[in-house]
Order: sequence, then structure tokens, then C-alpha cells
Amino acid sequence: MSTIDLYTFTTPNGRKPLIMLEEIGLPYTNHAIDISKGEQFKPEYVAINPNSKIPAMVDRETDLTIFESGAILIYLAEKSGQLLPTAPKNRFQVLQWLMLQMGSIGPMFGQLGHFKHAAPEKIPYAIERYEKETLRLYSVLDGQLTDHTFIADDDYSIADIATYPWVANYERLGLTLDGHPHLKRWVELLQQRPAVQRAMTMSL
Amino acid sequence: MSTIDLYTFTTPNGRKPLIMLEEIGLPYTNHAIDISKGEQFKPEYVAINPNSKIPAMVDRETDLTIFESGAILIYLAEKSGQLLPTAPKNRFQVLQWLMLQMGSIGPMFGQLGHFKHAAPEKIPYAIERYEKETLRLYSVLDGQLTDHTFIADDDYSIADIATYPWVANYERLGLTLDGHPHLKRWVELLQQRPAVQRAMTMSL
Ligand SMILES: N[C@@H](CCC(=O)N[C@@H](CS)C(=O)NCC(=O)O)C(=O)O
Ligand SMILES: N[C@@H](CCC(=O)N[C@@H](CS)C(=O)NCC(=O)O)C(=O)O
Repeated sequence: MSTIDLYTFTTPNGRKPLIMLEEIGLPYTNHAIDISKGEQFKPEYVAINPNSKIPAMVDRETDLTIFESGAILIYLAEKSGQLLPTAPKNRFQVLQWLMLQMGSIGPMFGQLGHFKHAAPEKIPYAIERYEKETLRLYSVLDGQLTDHTFIADDDYSIADIATYPWVANYERLGLTLDGHPHLKRWVELLQQRPAVQRAMTMSL
Repeated sequence: MSTIDLYTFTTPNGRKPLIMLEEIGLPYTNHAIDISKGEQFKPEYVAINPNSKIPAMVDRETDLTIFESGAILIYLAEKSGQLLPTAPKNRFQVLQWLMLQMGSIGPMFGQLGHFKHAAPEKIPYAIERYEKETLRLYSVLDGQLTDHTFIADDDYSIADIATYPWVANYERLGLTLDGHPHLKRWVELLQQRPAVQRAMTMSL
């Protein structure tokens, strides 16, 4: 029986907990919050996440409500004992790359998407600013993946799960991974995982 | 004797580990990385943080190198047993608000600062976008602080430490906290802490 209620949608941040839950195999119940219809602003949802963004999660077993995808990933990793090592060195490698995803990869790729697709005017300065930062972050990841199988190290972790939905949609940003062969190899590696496939194609 | 080497500078993200170290009272050695002179791009520093941003930390006692302020705060909280509760409910309240700081408050306030002060052209659309988001986040914090003394709950934590340097410099963003009385009360409360005062005025 599922004790986990996930409130999410089909966006990069929304896919992260879906990948995680599919990987660890915990039962969960999906509640679609259609942000294209403004459902994140409904009082019932704001009571769960006062920041009115998806995703958020309620675990009825432990009576915990958690928002912010990064916190949800840490919670589910610790609950399941999977995908976040406990040895300090490995654990903080995962946490630092998770923070890089949360603090830079998500927000900056997100700004590029906004100025390319959503902004009512084309603003060359803003598009260039965020395209440059996105490519710089591709290079940082590519460098790390030169001699590591996965982002934090040689083990698959929540740092990969957090980063994947943002890197995998490079085409939407009008970019290619061709100049970043290690990053491309990593995307292809993750694409082969059944849990990733299920989570990335799930409709809500 | 200090086993902690901190690489930082006098910016909001750079002040966070300074506040933390002053609060917990662990000895540390400061290494200024002057980002106005591009020192974050020096090979010696990129070897510590491949993302070439401050802050980063090396703990010689445990032989750990950590970048991203959010990961450094969690590390120091766990090392010292301070400012991050261990009970799951309280712990994840702190972690979710820390993630909100890392993923939204830092990046969005940072974009507003960029478009107000650093961008070579004034772009009204971008300034309005980030000003609106900054004010929205002020309201989210203000709402939470209506019935909590500190951000995550009634105990001071790394969520407060991460958020403070970003909220405290509202004047630089051309904003005021007058419309957000609970947030203003919280800023004034933190301002009274000797550790916060030392960290916020320290020159590097
Ligand atoms: N840092 C947050 C970001 C969440 C976020 O930005 N969610 C977007 C969808 S990817 C959202 O809910 N947007 C709706 C809105 O901004 O109103 C996290 O990782 O959970
Ligand atoms: N998410 C990172 C952000 C770090 C960051 O943006 N640092 C800025 C100073 S506040 C920096 O190093 N800027 C120099 C640069 O971008 O080259 C963290 O919290 O550690």
C-alpha cells in the first residue's frame, strides 16, 4: 500500500522524484498539479508548498510534507537506503553535485528556456547570457564525466537523477551535446535505465 | 589548530560559510578568492571547485573537499552537531528551506542584481521579471515567518544562515522590507547575533 503522495507535473523538476520513486521501487500515488492551468496556486496545494511550485511530497507513514525536489530526493534516498552513500566522502560528493544542479543547472537552464520560448520579446542579451552559462555548465559536467561513470563518482546517485531531466532536454534549448562527448555518453547511459524511461515518458 | 580551509569572498554566497563557522566556533583558515580579479578561474582553485565559483572548503581532518555553499553548510552542521536537527521532521523542514534558498532565493535575487547593476544595458523586461520573483519570495518567507521565529521552524538553523546574506542586502536591489514585517523582524533578529555581525563585516 502506498503511503507516499507525490504532487508533480511533466517538467524537469517534476520528473526528478518520478525517476527516484521508479528507481527505488517504493509505491506512490501521483497527483498531477497542472502548472499550465495554474493549479499550483490553489489553496489546497499552497498548504502543501507555500512556494506554489511543483514537486512536493507527503509521506503519510512518517507524517512528513516536503517541498523542493532536492530535499525530496534526499528524503527518499535515506528512507530507502539507496542512491546516497553514507560514507562521508561519497555522500558529500553526491550532495555537492546535487546542490550544483539545484542552484545552477536548474535555474540557469530554466532562464534560457524562458528567454528562448516564453518571453514575449526576444532579448538577445538575456538569451546569450543564459546560453553561455548553460554551455559552461555542460563543460563542467563533461569535465567531471571524463573520468567518472556518473556525476558524483562511479556510482549512480541522486545527483544523476536531479541532473538528467535538465540535460536530456537540450534540444528544447536549441543546443546539442556533440561538443561534450562524456556528457552525451552519460545521457545515453541513463536513457537505458527502465526506471528513467518510465519516469520520463509518464503522462500525468 | 585549524583543519578547515575556507575559500571564499565577500559576496552573499561567500558569507554563508563564514556565518556558519563563526556560529559553531570551529577554527578555520580563510583564503580570499577575489572574484572581481578572476581568481576563481586559477588552476589551483579550479582543482578545488571545477565549477569555478566561491565558496569551497577543504577539511584536512577528514580529507574532504566540498563546493557549493549548501553542501558546506550541511557538512559543518553534521560535523559540529549544530544548526541542523536530527529528528526527521525538523531536519527536512530545514533541508527544504535550504533548498529553496539554493534553488530560488540565491539565483533569482542574483539575476535581479545582475540586471540592475552589472548588465551593460537596462532591460526593463528582465528587471521586472526578477524584481517580481524577488518580491514573491519575500512574501513566501514573510508568510512562513508569521508564525515561526526562524525560517524552518522555531529554532535557528542553516536555513536561516543561507538565506540571511541574500535578504539582508535588499537595499542593493533597490527594495525595502517595509511591506514584509515578519521578514524585517527576522532580519533584525539575526543582525543582533555576534557571529552574524562578525561574518557580515569581515574583510577578506
Ligand atoms: N527548486 C525547485 C524548483 C521548482 C520549480 O521551479 N517548479 C516549476 C516547474 S519545473 C513550477 O512549479 N513552476 C510553476 C510556477 O513557477 O508557477 C525544485 O527543484 O523543486
Ligand atoms: N550555488 C553556488 C553559487 C556560488 C556563486 O554563485 N558564487 C559567486 C559569488 S556569490 C561566484 O563565485 N561568482 C564568480 C563567477 O561566477 O565567476 C553556491 O551557493 O555555492
